[in-house]
Amino acid sequence: MPISPDQAQEIADARSQQNTTMRATVPGMEAHLYTAHEVLDHGFIRVIDYMGDDSAICQAARVSYGKGTKSVQNDEGLIRYLMRHWHSTPFEMCEIKLHVKLPVFVARQWIRHRTANVNEYSARYSILDREFYIPAPEHINAQSVVNNQGRGKILEGEEAARVLEILKADSTRAYDNYEAMISDDGQDGLARELARMNLPANIYTQWYWKVDLHNLFHFLRLRADSHAQYEIRVYADAICNIVADWVPAAYSAFEDYRLGGAQLSGKAVDCVRRMLKGEEVTQETSGMSKGEWREFQGVVEA
Amino acid sequence: MPISPDQAQEIADARSQQNTTMRATVPGMEAHLYTAHEVLDHGFIRVIDYMGDDSAICQAARVSYGKGTKSVQNDEGLIRYLMRHWHSTPFEMCEIKLHVKLPVFVARQWIRHRTANVNEYSARYSILDREFYIPAPEHINAQSVVNNQGRGKILEGEEAARVLEILKADSTRAYDNYEAMISDDGQDGLARELARMNLPANIYTQWYWKVDLHNLFHFLRLRADSHAQYEIRVYADAICNIVADWVPAAYSAFEDYRLGGAQLSGKAVDCVRRMLKGEEVTQETSGMSKGEWREFQGVVEA
Amino acid sequence: MPISPDQAQEIADARSQQNTTMRATVPGMEAHLYTAHEVLDHGFIRVIDYMGDDSAICQAARVSYGKGTKSVQNDEGLIRYLMRHWHSTPFEMCEIKLHVKLPVFVARQWIRHRTANVNEYSARYSILDREFYIPAPEHINAQSVVNNQGRGKILEGEEAARVLEILKADSTRAYDNYEAMISDDGQDGLARELARMNLPANIYTQWYWKVDLHNLFHFLRLRADSHAQYEIRVYADAICNIVADWVPAAYSAFEDYRLGGAQLSGKAVDCVRRMLKGEEVTQETSGMSKGEWREFQGVVEA
Amino acid sequence: MPISPDQAQEIADARSQQNTTMRATVPGMEAHLYTAHEVLDHGFIRVIDYMGDDSAICQAARVSYGKGTKSVQNDEGLIRYLMRHWHSTPFEMCEIKLHVKLPVFVARQWIRHRTANVNEYSARYSILDREFYIPAPEHINAQSVVNNQGRGKILEGEEAARVLEILKADSTRAYDNYEAMISDDGQDGLARELARMNLPANIYTQWYWKVDLHNLFHFLRLRADSHAQYEIRVYADAICNIVADWVPAAYSAFEDYRLGGAQLSGKAVDCVRRMLKGEEVTQETSGMSKGEWREFQGVVEA
Repeated sequence: MPISPDQAQEIADARSQQNTTMRATVPGMEAHLYTAHEVLDHGFIRVIDYMGDDSAICQAARVSYGKGTKSVQNDEGLIRYLMRHWHSTPFEMCEIKLHVKLPVFVARQWIRHRTANVNEYSARYSILDREFYIPAPEHINAQSVVNNQGRGKILEGEEAARVLEILKADSTRAYDNYEAMISDDGQDGLARELARMNLPANIYTQWYWKVDLHNLFHFLRLRADSHAQYEIRVYADAICNIVADWVPAAYSAFEDYRLGGAQLSGKAVDCVRRMLKGEEVTQETSGMSKGEWREFQGVVEA
Repeated sequence: MPISPDQAQEIADARSQQNTTMRATVPGMEAHLYTAHEVLDHGFIRVIDYMGDDSAICQAARVSYGKGTKSVQNDEGLIRYLMRHWHSTPFEMCEIKLHVKLPVFVARQWIRHRTANVNEYSARYSILDREFYIPAPEHINAQSVVNNQGRGKILEGEEAARVLEILKADSTRAYDNYEAMISDDGQDGLARELARMNLPANIYTQWYWKVDLHNLFHFLRLRADSHAQYEIRVYADAICNIVADWVPAAYSAFEDYRLGGAQLSGKAVDCVRRMLKGEEVTQETSGMSKGEWREFQGVVEA
Repeated sequence: MPISPDQAQEIADARSQQNTTMRATVPGMEAHLYTAHEVLDHGFIRVIDYMGDDSAICQAARVSYGKGTKSVQNDEGLIRYLMRHWHSTPFEMCEIKLHVKLPVFVARQWIRHRTANVNEYSARYSILDREFYIPAPEHINAQSVVNNQGRGKILEGEEAARVLEILKADSTRAYDNYEAMISDDGQDGLARELARMNLPANIYTQWYWKVDLHNLFHFLRLRADSHAQYEIRVYADAICNIVADWVPAAYSAFEDYRLGGAQLSGKAVDCVRRMLKGEEVTQETSGMSKGEWREFQGVVEA
Repeated sequence: MPISPDQAQEIADARSQQNTTMRATVPGMEAHLYTAHEVLDHGFIRVIDYMGDDSAICQAARVSYGKGTKSVQNDEGLIRYLMRHWHSTPFEMCEIKLHVKLPVFVARQWIRHRTANVNEYSARYSILDREFYIPAPEHINAQSVVNNQGRGKILEGEEAARVLEILKADSTRAYDNYEAMISDDGQDGLARELARMNLPANIYTQWYWKVDLHNLFHFLRLRADSHAQYEIRVYADAICNIVADWVPAAYSAFEDYRLGGAQLSGKAVDCVRRMLKGEEVTQETSGMSKGEWREFQGVVEA
């Protein structure tokens, strides 16, 4: 179900506000405020509020009375230094609040990130909408044969069609029965807290999610990673785009040191040193297991 | 699916250990260790490990070098004092680790308690078992007419039968299709991380859950409460029984001050005082809303 | 050392900003922004930023697309309901960031509240200022004779004078020696991270402290309480005044249900019921210890 | 003040217990239990309790009913895999409780690690002992000239002697005055919560500290690092020795992947690749700042 006309009006109303404040504001984020960025077939991400900007990170690091510095360049250097040396607390001084619509199986991964605040739409109190995630054909994959916890090649032809048909038919039937059970038309109507148990994990839920920038970066490092399940990665990617507009210097440092970087083990550091001295290092002489060696090669070979 | 013979053997093996330790041990908890206490139709709670006892709470409160006191009575008095005055940190010095099997919709409420450690059975990596929660007839209720977020009278006759039939049929069909989709018999087999989205919220999952006693009490206060959904309350009740054997003095203080007590607002305290002076106080003269007054009457009237 | 002219200028500059935003703003909080509210002899509290308002609590509770309701009265009723039933997550959707200057021994109590973000002025990196908390004569008390963890009657005459003299002289000497040790005038100068160990706990430190409203209320309930040490209570009181301007409905509910209310044990509830039926209940027949009974009388007797 | 005869007796009593348990026990940790490992001049670390072992990490990762595997080698491989891929939750399934005696300025750094449980000796309730950290001559250093937040060369001769004299004299005077103020001999005696403010940051305090293995590793990575202040690093080093005996496989993985490893930025990965292809990379062509380049050289050059 797309955003209803009433909801669109509520969003438009919120976006028409013009408040005056002495707080730090970020034009790039004002442009995002309240707007629903679409994700998957029915999901979205909306920025509801934010606190702080790049400069707020530096102010906190310096415990300063005002802006603390006039130079943007100084701030960037400080932010890179803080990120490089794992000084996490200044990044905690920025906060973002999102309204997210997402399938339940994605929500269950997401909620594992505990240092955040959440208010989820209550299926004890309210009736869920008839909205289910049905993957696009190009995102229906076979079980991976190399990674027990991932997906491999795209399914094609009949098998893919069969999967799609099952997902659609089972979702429809489950929701029809959900509605039939809670209906009080000619019967008492089953309690919502019970009826919801019939709904599959591809149904959409919604929540308000609030998190500080440090913990958001941690979330993004794990969930915008190529090993994350596609269906949560698209949410992480959408958030990355927003964060890049919100705190450009911090996001750039995050990209360089976390997203784009690599963690080397002591053994791997030793191998790099030996290789730079001209030694031919193999898995056998590296001291690494096969899995580690394969990952190491992914780092040092372009 | 009940505990398999292999699993039963693993439990028996674990229970046959006889280790020697200088750590605090609690005979009442040793009796619980590893055993599966059944909850709902396929669920259970198993104690996997525990740290500390009543005496450990007092030792920490006193930052003592040894037991700190020889007197059990002193310890009980101290524990009651700590509980009464919201000194939460000494209770954090005890820790418990549980293995829990529970329906997904219960797991989703449970996980909202963030100050705990969790490892859940991975449906990206593994195949879930064919086990669904189907409520007993006496736990199929209508939506409450007084509380939007609860259940009311028990459904009877045809309507209850219809609900049961739907839940069973939809669970069966969903699981049949789940199996069909992941099967690699004559096809590639859909990735598990995708196939799981077809499974309804009454399927069982499992996790290891570790929590300190203070946060466990917080969980129990909310979830062993009469307003909690029945399906999570039975887990909370089962844990209450275990905790009573583990830290009897702390549990008894918890029962008196939290489970059995009441939080009065400033207005309610004022009403009690006026009533004790002989004044006839009504909702109108209480300053409370109707909802508050009803709850207040529930406290002061036996 | 009061706020320097440079710092005053930085504050004035920050207060002269006029930014436009679509975010929720609270005029009462804008008036507080950046201004230093004095606490104790050299301390202060400054609001650096805030997120959300009363309406944001309700929006999150409803997971709504816009304001969610037009009626302030509805919002107030919902907020009271949420507070009364321990629905804590909607209150977590508001956030405040403070700049606080406070004595080290106060900071050490304060930091025990873990669910908050902190950046403290670094005495490894920087030189602390010569500022020490010296209590006003009316806040120099004897050890309490009824409460091992509090203070009793005000010290008078010679003893008070002697205490003041000691605190002043020792602070001065400690700071003189701190300066002498780190000086690089004619010597190498001791590392700051070492020299600081000579400074007593009444020296002032500073930090940025960010916390959500739910956890702030928890802090305030414990620290604005009459059992809290005076020197942290004055900070809590100053924050209470700010919060009352920020989220008036939430603060009013907090005052009624937490600050002004009382937690009754199961035994206490039973006593109230018996008393309301006309029974004369004494400590002996109450089932309570002497300490509990004394506290209970404090609740039921005006 | 060393451990008193009474305290030594309490420790000996605790160590003479022989309890039988079905829980996992680790002989290497039993040997540590209760014993005070000395740190600095008056400090110590004592293991009070522990939960879990290497095998418990794997059991939780597998959500298994029993040991889950018989093979130690399999467990080691799994633990290395979990550590390498930042699967942190299985490590949270082990817990340790320590009794630590440490100078206040070390305690203030330590407490910044928020995901832990703490009970500190109360200076509101109790009288602190006359014990101050006085650095050994070889640990009295000048302020670093390259790192604003560290120490440089060792102070020698007169300057060092002067520092030692100041620290000793000021500690003695501060404690004498503390005692004089709280004394109720011929006066009322100042409240302890006030008198403590006269004590400098090198006085010793004590606490019980409980933490899970994942968060302990995070603490150790930052505090056993060469950039950490010496006085906290010695505590971290002492804990490393204990953890190596408790969970040898996890500790070994931690050593390889965290303590001994390196985090490379995207730019650094790019430089390594170019260098391995034979390019001569300099700071100018690296895209790194001078500080980053210096740190990068420390990684790739033996």
